[in-house]
Amino acid sequence: MNGKEKATKIVDQMYNNDAFSQWLGIERIEEDEGKSILRMTIRPEMLNGFGIAHGGITFSFADSAFAFASNSHGRKSVSIETSISHTAPLRAGDVITAITSEESLSNKIGIYYIKIIKQDGQQVALFKGTVYRTTKEW
Amino acid sequence: MNGKEKATKIVDQMYNNDAFSQWLGIERIEEDEGKSILRMTIRPEMLNGFGIAHGGITFSFADSAFAFASNSHGRKSVSIETSISHTAPLRAGDVITAITSEESLSNKIGIYYIKIIKQDGQQVALFKGTVYRTTKEW
Amino acid sequence: MNGKEKATKIVDQMYNNDAFSQWLGIERIEEDEGKSILRMTIRPEMLNGFGIAHGGITFSFADSAFAFASNSHGRKSVSIETSISHTAPLRAGDVITAITSEESLSNKIGIYYIKIIKQDGQQVALFKGTVYRTTKEW
Amino acid sequence: MNGKEKATKIVDQMYNNDAFSQWLGIERIEEDEGKSILRMTIRPEMLNGFGIAHGGITFSFADSAFAFASNSHGRKSVSIETSISHTAPLRAGDVITAITSEESLSNKIGIYYIKIIKQDGQQVALFKGTVYRTTKEW
Repeated sequence: MNGKEKATKIVDQMYNNDAFSQWLGIERIEEDEGKSILRMTIRPEMLNGFGIAHGGITFSFADSAFAFASNSHGRKSVSIETSISHTAPLRAGDVITAITSEESLSNKIGIYYIKIIKQDGQQVALFKGTVYRTTKEW
Repeated sequence: MNGKEKATKIVDQMYNNDAFSQWLGIERIEEDEGKSILRMTIRPEMLNGFGIAHGGITFSFADSAFAFASNSHGRKSVSIETSISHTAPLRAGDVITAITSEESLSNKIGIYYIKIIKQDGQQVALFKGTVYRTTKEW
Repeated sequence: MNGKEKATKIVDQMYNNDAFSQWLGIERIEEDEGKSILRMTIRPEMLNGFGIAHGGITFSFADSAFAFASNSHGRKSVSIETSISHTAPLRAGDVITAITSEESLSNKIGIYYIKIIKQDGQQVALFKGTVYRTTKEW
Repeated sequence: MNGKEKATKIVDQMYNNDAFSQWLGIERIEEDEGKSILRMTIRPEMLNGFGIAHGGITFSFADSAFAFASNSHGRKSVSIETSISHTAPLRAGDVITAITSEESLSNKIGIYYIKIIKQDGQQVALFKGTVYRTTKEW
């Protein structure tokens, strides 16, 4: 089993038990060691009082990509700190993609940038996440 | 209409149209100028693959409190940057409360800390949010 | 040796070898387990091209308080992520105080808020810092 | 005067009056609209009690690059929120380079990622900064 197959097997386990990622309608596009690409569609029940996607929707989406990417190396990894900047609004029907980038990986700590773009390529959010890498294996 | 009544009127408008905060089951406990206290219960569909609340749930909850608190002064305010640290896990049935603290308010910028605690008083997340205060009134 | 004495002994070791904190002119006001209060004065060589204190000065000041507070429990602790919001400008001659607040402390992770105020009590910066707590003792 | 010349003229004004950037020994390698590359050398007076560069040194260095890049479009821009993750230690004699990347630019807000690397190419810090873009021109 190579790294990509191992990553897929771990994310299978994570995703298949992840009720909230399933409620979001998250679709897995690609995964590899330290990497995850996800897609989802904004639905009316995801909007806030301004008629645009609630900030928590894009955060949740990025946070799933972050969890998949950071755990895919095989060690259980827990979120320590995450931040997000929302740079453009989303409306019902918009299709968004999350693309992870592993910026740093040491024995204990991993840092990831995640960019969310919508169907026309426009960037809508920038997420940064830091994990603590436990010694427990998947 | 005093400040507290004005805050309540604005949050009424925000909350009544906020489909995602309603999906979360958010209950408004108190609001005032620059302040919001909210409560909600963790449900099975909010869990991730570790069997604990998805990080996006507590983020979304804090983000609603942040939006209500920052808009309650009367000027439409938009999120610029938010961060969250998850400090303890949550399980289905846990009841959580978000308490905002307005740390800085200038003509253009507002900064809020939000603490989330669970039913036994244990802190489960620390959120920080920054808004840009537009010149548009509610 | 009680907790306060132990904290002081550790910070003695840290501060006495800390060339940059000494260049800043940092004065230790108080320390205890998980706590540090520091003071310093803004000098002309600390200003940027706007004639106000460079953002790095207040960051450095808060970062020293963060290091002292988080190490004072006795375990060597390393910074994982830090953020700062500058909320008011500082000029040469201003005297600033950093006050730490330990917001979370688990076996592996510590989270601190640090507020910087100037001589008239006005808040000038809000800092948040997260450490990884190693198993090495001071 | 094209964009690059305008950027250089603005950063000339900023840098020539920036006492702290000069104390750091910051050398300007390149600038353009929304971009800055800087270099500096770690000196003994920049170390902390662990014998490595104080976290405030790399923050300050990145913060200068952030200020130069964000102001270089011609509108005075002020820092709202900044964060840094230190990913590897630095010792006296190390030569570091800061490279900015403009991630988002709207009418009011700009977001920048800054990567700091040392002489052998190893990444030592990741910085994120958000500015509010005033209507005042340089």
